[in-house]
Amino acid sequence: MPEALRVLDVVGAKYGVRFGYRHFDWSCETYKSTGAMMPADGLDRLRDHDAILLGAVGWPGVPDHISLWGLLLPIRREFDQYVNLRPVRLLPGVTPPVRDKRPGDIDFWVVRENTEGEYSQLGGRQGEGTPTEMVLQTAAFTRRGTDRIMRYAFELARELGKPHVTSATKSNGIYHSMPYWDERFAAIAAEYPEVTVDQDHIDILCARFVMSPERFDVVVASNLFGDILSDLGPGVTGTIGVAPSGNINPERVHPSTFEPVHGSAPDIAGRGIANPIGQIWSAAMMLDHLGLAEAGADVVGAIERVLADASAPRTPDLGGKATTEELGKAIAEAV
Amino acid sequence: MPEALRVLDVVGAKYGVRFGYRHFDWSCETYKSTGAMMPADGLDRLRDHDAILLGAVGWPGVPDHISLWGLLLPIRREFDQYVNLRPVRLLPGVTPPVRDKRPGDIDFWVVRENTEGEYSQLGGRQGEGTPTEMVLQTAAFTRRGTDRIMRYAFELARELGKPHVTSATKSNGIYHSMPYWDERFAAIAAEYPEVTVDQDHIDILCARFVMSPERFDVVVASNLFGDILSDLGPGVTGTIGVAPSGNINPERVHPSTFEPVHGSAPDIAGRGIANPIGQIWSAAMMLDHLGLAEAGADVVGAIERVLADASAPRTPDLGGKATTEELGKAIAEAV
Ligand SMILES: CC(C)[C@H](C(=O)O)[C@@H](O)C(=O)O
Ligand SMILES: CC(C)[C@H](C(=O)O)[C@@H](O)C(=O)O
Repeated sequence: MPEALRVLDVVGAKYGVRFGYRHFDWSCETYKSTGAMMPADGLDRLRDHDAILLGAVGWPGVPDHISLWGLLLPIRREFDQYVNLRPVRLLPGVTPPVRDKRPGDIDFWVVRENTEGEYSQLGGRQGEGTPTEMVLQTAAFTRRGTDRIMRYAFELARELGKPHVTSATKSNGIYHSMPYWDERFAAIAAEYPEVTVDQDHIDILCARFVMSPERFDVVVASNLFGDILSDLGPGVTGTIGVAPSGNINPERVHPSTFEPVHGSAPDIAGRGIANPIGQIWSAAMMLDHLGLAEAGADVVGAIERVLADASAPRTPDLGGKATTEELGKAIAEAV
Repeated sequence: MPEALRVLDVVGAKYGVRFGYRHFDWSCETYKSTGAMMPADGLDRLRDHDAILLGAVGWPGVPDHISLWGLLLPIRREFDQYVNLRPVRLLPGVTPPVRDKRPGDIDFWVVRENTEGEYSQLGGRQGEGTPTEMVLQTAAFTRRGTDRIMRYAFELARELGKPHVTSATKSNGIYHSMPYWDERFAAIAAEYPEVTVDQDHIDILCARFVMSPERFDVVVASNLFGDILSDLGPGVTGTIGVAPSGNINPERVHPSTFEPVHGSAPDIAGRGIANPIGQIWSAAMMLDHLGLAEAGADVVGAIERVLADASAPRTPDLGGKATTEELGKAIAEAV
């Protein structure tokens, strides 16, 4: 986070924008001392900001479903950040695990539904502790929620001049929700006759992310499938530590949240060697969302130049020995 | 299928076993002419067999959820084939999409729960055709269903002398079922103190299948997550057309089903160029299950020798020009 703020200050100075920050130290540590991930009025304290730049959340010993349902997921929902937008891009200077791919070959967007679907608190347990114990977990797909994420994907495809949308489904196995997803995809696709479409079941789609990632432009997916695809994509491009995301309220009625795709990496926490690019690139997506598209593109360009430069600092995940700060400073200087 | 039967006849002759077959022509074509994927007494007709060797199911124009819930999924459930067992193995002579991996580097098993979980007909639709339309989809996890698939995975790990089990979870996002999955994994793991364990959320687990597939031995997963992982694994090893699976009733009270992981490939249907190895290897898994382990290993060895031999026939998916029959005959001869 400090490196993202460093870069924001530099790019702000360059473009004549001064950012005002309010820092909220809400974390698993807060939970351990107060019993809550954020204060009771936490969402209200966030409400009037233009955007939220969020660091990775999670810590061993605090069950994930507590840390996430106590902070990240309520933010996404309260502020109706129904689009989770994540680029999958093979960057210069990064050696991906897949062979024979060059920067430019892999360059697409995952558009993930971010407020409903499989991430749901509907359900419960019966017969706790008995041999007939059973847990039900219900996913909810609304017409409104499904249609708006699909429209966003089609609009994005049009805007990018990449008029092709792939839908992630599993209507052969998941009986109610996924056939409905397909039905709405067909209905929304009909509104965009100039955009070509296809759909893949999530199992083969994951295999295709590895075997033929160059075929994708915009992939639209439910909350769970989008989560899977937007980690797998960066895995394929070798850039988990680098990948950014926006949790976006497109109508701008509420603030949007920008955060790296990677987790909190407890194995290296406190050692000052985490790759800051995921956070910095998230800040660039935030600039774009705030109407500072040129500044955002400038930051992404700086990241790409630093990565492409073999003599620039690299954190250990990229095969180097640099610290978080050294890499952050190099990007700030490149800006 | 004819090539799998060819190989079975040859290996049967070699080991002095004569297989009796009953052929059931149940398919999407049956559906189109009769309105049902199989006859009303279809499951009863299968019941008394020792095993079921199933060809890939599905055809454009017949919605997948009809073709699958009308044939494959009822078979899995009626015969309590609660284990879906799928190898992920980098084979000689196959060029995988990932770099720097050699045969032997990637060699593990996905143990997928096969009768409950996310593949469920529980749920429904409200407000059809209205703007407030909503679809609920409920997954069901029972103690019995969860515990038995996990025990199978631990037993397999022990048997293979690969005492490490990885659990696929998503307890940070999926509120009820996945924390329960974790709870049962911890409970069953305690019964196998000599087996080491870890667990990954499905998003990062998919990325790890690409970035570090050599780290896995046995991966245990729910119905949906196992489905995803067992297509992704073969995608990573470049062998979607080759991968086999067993739908196993370990207690042998009911017949088990063996089928390729790949789909029905309508794009090449009828051209005689489909790779028969997925079906042949499935037949080898069937031999193993029927107590003919030596014969099964013999077939797998023949597949490996043919694949490793650069002058042997290869179907187009493997970069060659051979027909299904030529490759099937080569494997039969190698046996
Ligand atoms: C065809 C489909 C229902 C099936 C599944 O998802 O189980 C297939 O993908 C498989 O993995 O066997
Ligand atoms: C931490 C977790 C709940 C979260 C999610 O699954 O949404 C993360 O994986 C992500 O993708 O943002």
